[in-house]
Order: sequence, then C-alpha cells, then structure tokens
Amino acid sequence: MVKRFIIAIDLGGTNFKCALLDSNLKIKAKSIFSTKSFANKEKLIAGIAAAINSFIFNLKLEKKNILGIGIGLPGPVDSAKGIVHFLPNIKGWKEVALKRILETKIKLPVFIDNDAKLMTLAEYSLGAAAGYKNVLCLTLGTGVGAGLILNEVLYRGNDNAAGELGHLPLNESGPFCGCGSQACLETYIGNAALIKAARKEFRADISLELVSQMAKAHQLKAIKFWNQIGVKLGLVLSGVVNLLNLDAIVIGGGVASSGKTLFASVKQTISKRAMSIQAKRVKVFKAKLGINAGLIGAGFLVKERLKS
Amino acid sequence: MVKRFIIAIDLGGTNFKCALLDSNLKIKAKSIFSTKSFANKEKLIAGIAAAINSFIFNLKLEKKNILGIGIGLPGPVDSAKGIVHFLPNIKGWKEVALKRILETKIKLPVFIDNDAKLMTLAEYSLGAAAGYKNVLCLTLGTGVGAGLILNEVLYRGNDNAAGELGHLPLNESGPFCGCGSQACLETYIGNAALIKAARKEFRADISLELVSQMAKAHQLKAIKFWNQIGVKLGLVLSGVVNLLNLDAIVIGGGVASSGKTLFASVKQTISKRAMSIQAKRVKVFKAKLGINAGLIGAGFLVKERLKS
Repeated sequence: MVKRFIIAIDLGGTNFKCALLDSNLKIKAKSIFSTKSFANKEKLIAGIAAAINSFIFNLKLEKKNILGIGIGLPGPVDSAKGIVHFLPNIKGWKEVALKRILETKIKLPVFIDNDAKLMTLAEYSLGAAAGYKNVLCLTLGTGVGAGLILNEVLYRGNDNAAGELGHLPLNESGPFCGCGSQACLETYIGNAALIKAARKEFRADISLELVSQMAKAHQLKAIKFWNQIGVKLGLVLSGVVNLLNLDAIVIGGGVASSGKTLFASVKQTISKRAMSIQAKRVKVFKAKLGINAGLIGAGFLVKERLKS
Repeated sequence: MVKRFIIAIDLGGTNFKCALLDSNLKIKAKSIFSTKSFANKEKLIAGIAAAINSFIFNLKLEKKNILGIGIGLPGPVDSAKGIVHFLPNIKGWKEVALKRILETKIKLPVFIDNDAKLMTLAEYSLGAAAGYKNVLCLTLGTGVGAGLILNEVLYRGNDNAAGELGHLPLNESGPFCGCGSQACLETYIGNAALIKAARKEFRADISLELVSQMAKAHQLKAIKFWNQIGVKLGLVLSGVVNLLNLDAIVIGGGVASSGKTLFASVKQTISKRAMSIQAKRVKVFKAKLGINAGLIGAGFLVKERLKS
C-alpha cells in the first residue's frame, strides 16, 4: 500500500512554515523560511512552490504519495474558490487566485483558508477543544484572530469572514483601528498596543516576553499589566459568551504564554461579567498545539475537502 | 379529513396572548388576557390552561383538531425538557416543569421556548428574514432579546441560552445592569433607560410613543434622540456582524416603530464601524410580523417538534 502524506503550509508575515504530515496529522518533517526574504508576491508564491517541491524531493517522495497541499493565510480568504482577498501584513496581495496558481505549478490539489480558522479546526479536532460542541478559538498576536465551531462545525459566514473577535468594540470611542473603526479590542490588546503600553509602564526597550518573565517571577507591576489585559479580553469574551452560550474558549498565540495571570484574569472577568448560565457553562483553555496549530489545521482542511 | 390547528401562547409580563393557528401558521382567532390579574404562578398556569380550554370550547373544536400547544416565555427556558428556568419580569417562576404540568392538565402535546427565539423562528420562516442563511433577530422592549439563525437553523447553545444581545458590553464600565454586570447594551437602550433619557431630555411625563411621533413630525430634538440610540445599537451590532458575518438583522419590538431615524442610524453606524466585507454583506430589516411574531413562532415550534 502506498503511504500517503499531506503537505501543510502556515504563511505568516515574518516567516512561513512548511511541514509533512501523515494521514493522522502527525508532523513528520518541518522547515521554516523567511517570508520577508521574497521581494514580492510572485517571488513569494514561487518560493512556496519551491519549498513544496524540494520537500517532496528531499524526502524521496513522489507526487502520488501526497494527498494534497493545505495552506493557511493571515487574512480574508475565499476558501471555496481558493482566492486570497488581501493580507493586511504582507504587501501586494489582492484577489490572488492562489489555489489555481499553485495547482498549475505543482500539479497537486491545493486548499487554502484563513489561518485563525485552521488553528480553530486543529484545536477542535486534536487540541484543547476536542469534544466540545460550541467553541471560540482565538489567537493573540499582531492581530486578534478567532474561529468559531458552532454545533460541531466551523462557522464561516457567507463570505468566510466570521471570527473577527479583534474588531468587537470595547468602548463607544477610543483608539483608532486599522479596520476604520475605533475602540476595537485589537487596539487595546493587539501586540502593537501591548508593546506601547509596556514601554510606557516599564522602559523603552522592553519586550512582551520580558514582561511575561517578570510576571512569572511574581513582579507585581508585571502581574498587574497582564491582569488588566485579561480584564479587557475577558469583558469582550463575556459578551460573546452571553451571545453564543459557548462551551469552551481556547486562547493561543504569543501572549497566551504570558503565564497564569492572563488566564486567571480572563476567567475571573467572565465569571463576574457574563450571565450566570453562560458563565457556568464555558471553560477557558490554553491552546494545546502551540505553533503547530496552523499546520495541523491546514492538514485537517485537506482531509476534509478530499472527503467531500 | 379532520382539520388540524395549533394553539399558540405568547406570555409577556403585562399580558398573554392566545391564538388559534391553522397548519400554515395563519392566525384564525386571538384573545388577550392580563398576566398581572393572576395573583401567583399557580393561578397564572391555571389561567393559561383555562384560556386554552375555553378557546377549544368556544370555537366548537375537539382535542383531536389540535396538533399541539406552543408557548413562548420571556426568560431562559430548557426547551427540550420543557422547563422554565426563571422569568425576570414575572415573579415566582423558578425551574417550573411547565410542559409536564400543562400536558397533565390539558392532555395535548405542549412545547415551550424562549420568546425571542420564537420571534426569530417566525421572522425567519415567514417574515423579514425569509431566504437568508445567517440572521440575528432582535426585539427592543423592556429587555433587548435576540435569536440567531446560523447556517439556516436556530442556534441555541448547550443551555438554550444563546442570543443575549442585550448583555454585550458597550463600554468597559457604565450603568449597572440587572444581570450583575455593567455597561450592557440593555442599560443604554432597554425601555427603562430610554424612558429615563427621554424624561431628562424632554419632560417628566413623556412616553416613548410621543418621542416617536415627534421624530416622525421632523422635530429635531426627537430625531437626535433616536439617532443616538441607533448609534449605540449599531455599534454593538457592528461587533456582532464582524464576529458572525451575518446576512440579515431583523429589528422588532416597540421601539422598532419609532420611525426611520433609528433604522437609518443603525445602518449608517454599521457601514461606518463594521469591517468592509461584513458591512457590505448585512441587510437591516424591520420585523414584518409585528406583535404576532411570538404567536407564529410558537406555532412553528409545534410543527417542527411534531415533525422530528
């Protein structure tokens, strides 16, 4: 019997990861490339194609061993048609028919989707939210992306644009947001806002990793910093919990590693601010699959699409 | 062939409506009773049973003509088990097995659900949201209740508690809310808040109906009043639209009849504050079934439950 694999790609603004997954979505091999080393969109697409081909070649595989390619992208994607609408953090991408372009180059089935949606599929199928029916899975980074599992399926919305948790308002007015609105959650807890707040609170060259280490070392000022972030996130989540009567919330991304304070504060805020039935129901978990969630989700996408 | 009907009841804090529906959910007869004239829970339940029986008797029907009884209630309900958890605006209701109690009294199948969910089912099946896939249906009254149709089915959540739009926060802090939180949408645009704001803005004995009439007569101060309400509601809806990529929002309840200003302001706020893809997708409609939505939804519930 021919052994079959999936190639998964997780494209980020800084780098892209490429992995070989077996049919149980176990990662068998992995490479990382710098996204920024490619001068433009065409070169980046050629780089992705080259990464896939060299992966197959180096591991002495043939195309018949590969079920398909799954790709996660940091922006709005028409997953059904295989079109990338745009990428807020990678220049030059507008309405790119990535599926068609890559299938022509590589001669293998290609499936694409938004990265937060793929992370959600991964945490739901194999991670922290396994066994729960209604789940919000969010990732804290440059942006605050999220995906929703409702009644046991990924909820997409008509434009595959559901899940923009970072653009729920936290106040009627406040800091201006890249999306054109103001006071969006992302303007308070996106990485740029957090770094700005940390520099104001501590010193000019501090990193969020250092503030996390300080909190883990029980430094009061750092604990207070993460606590305040947790209250803001927890308040928006309370509203979502009231609206959707969720079973579980999974929090991933860099900031999720800041230590216990953030999670304690999110949980406490939900139990204080959400309605009693909803607050009692919902569990808050740290993401389990870490930096591999996007790759595993991309593999899940390939399996799901080839099944249907 | 025996003609079959459904008896629908819409229980509110002020009065309850009882109607006979044909199998196409057309209302054939209707009565209204004062909820407050019943001294306690037991008497109210006996009153509901008496209303149903006298309906059957007066219309010269027999029990074999009645498919079932559908009841909408203003609070959290376990629809599957037929239990009313509690009713915020009617005293003495706590974990009441209403389905069992009434089935014992009346010897007909009884189905119960939350009133906002039934209104949503009605507007989705026969009203303003017919033909749309992902819909939020909200009703502006004492509370701000809502129901969600997602992927063409009523989304309930594990506790049937989804849809609490009135308890999404509009600010980090603000007026205290009956739910235990603060700055919930309901504390700004629930009827009590609106009446208080109107009295402050106009005069001590003004009604919301009068402020609506004044706005329809182009009085600037009244137009400004409804405009500000629309901005607050529109902002919370922008967040929900970003999260759920909705196709349609249906607004009903007393305040929905305040005139064009409220709807114009809600639409304008969504187009300004929601993300471009989501804002472009969503349509905002006035509820079509008016005060009968709850009754029609209760009829829909009976048909749906008897089918499955």
